[in-house]
Amino acid sequence: MDSSIPCLEKLVDCFAALPGIGRKTASRLAYHLLAVDEQQAKEFSSAITEARQRIHHCPICQNFTDGQRCRICSDPGRDGSVICVVESPRDVAAIEKMQEFRGLYHVLHGLISPMDGIGPEQLYIKELIKRAGDPQVKELIMATNPTAEGESTAIYISKLVKPLGVKVTRLAYGMPVGGSLEYADEVTLFRALEGRSEI
Amino acid sequence: MDSSIPCLEKLVDCFAALPGIGRKTASRLAYHLLAVDEQQAKEFSSAITEARQRIHHCPICQNFTDGQRCRICSDPGRDGSVICVVESPRDVAAIEKMQEFRGLYHVLHGLISPMDGIGPEQLYIKELIKRAGDPQVKELIMATNPTAEGESTAIYISKLVKPLGVKVTRLAYGMPVGGSLEYADEVTLFRALEGRSEI
Repeated sequence: MDSSIPCLEKLVDCFAALPGIGRKTASRLAYHLLAVDEQQAKEFSSAITEARQRIHHCPICQNFTDGQRCRICSDPGRDGSVICVVESPRDVAAIEKMQEFRGLYHVLHGLISPMDGIGPEQLYIKELIKRAGDPQVKELIMATNPTAEGESTAIYISKLVKPLGVKVTRLAYGMPVGGSLEYADEVTLFRALEGRSEI
Repeated sequence: MDSSIPCLEKLVDCFAALPGIGRKTASRLAYHLLAVDEQQAKEFSSAITEARQRIHHCPICQNFTDGQRCRICSDPGRDGSVICVVESPRDVAAIEKMQEFRGLYHVLHGLISPMDGIGPEQLYIKELIKRAGDPQVKELIMATNPTAEGESTAIYISKLVKPLGVKVTRLAYGMPVGGSLEYADEVTLFRALEGRSEI
């Protein structure tokens, strides 16, 4: 939908560059921002700038934080012997929502993916190995997504960490709770069967 | 998904305030903007500010423009005897995409909707009546959406304009009832324009 107004097209482009937002939705959102009151549009613009200015990586776990260290790393009540390794800050938020895990995290900010030209050196793996060298650390839980990239990243890291005498575990594979056998793919079902436990 | 970072939450709120964007999508988009390179985030922020600063209503048709007048009103090749009345600037873009209509537009920036507390005085109806008073104007095409609000707004305006001796027509119901102009394909839109009838 060509509006012939360059700065409007630019705004549509910005929205369209977001994941899962197509041209039509992008155009709807851009026109919406032109129609809302001035204050709301200003807030949006400065929310982006502020978030980018204030939020940086925690020097320990690489999660997003607006403080010196993130609130998890600076919480003395957390168990420093277990580190849960995840792909992104959103995964930390998902696990925290569960309110069951009391250990620390390490955010890789991506997965090894040769197809996309992402090698181990582009991720925060070096920092993780350094942390794993601390004698306090007893276990690394690999909580990367159960995809090909997630799997190979987990295996890559475990090979580097095991010589340090740290236990490396992986999230269990199986049926999603509330799911249906009928709709489960063969691989998931096979993993669920393989990992069966006594009732 | 509580991140416990106020400025990140603020950004999620801003995304969630957009139409059709839920909390989960908003959170995904906010985290995405923190992960992209600095330049891209800056561009997004300034695209919003610039669009709001540069774009205003055309003093004639009330469509969005970044110039003194919009490009349609300032085009001497357009037929000034026909004014197509629409709800929003996006509708102008949709009709222009068809490349069949050569008249001018008038954007109401809303529809009469007593349920939402929107009366005729909140829309650009006064400005439309003034334009309709110009002897050059022969026809008003009511191209508001084929919904209850669109219908009643069209009827309301036609009652005010008819005494001025201006023909008032309505888009034909080639449009699917309850649909939206924005999502109509060009052919449907063309048929609707072609089959317009006097109110």
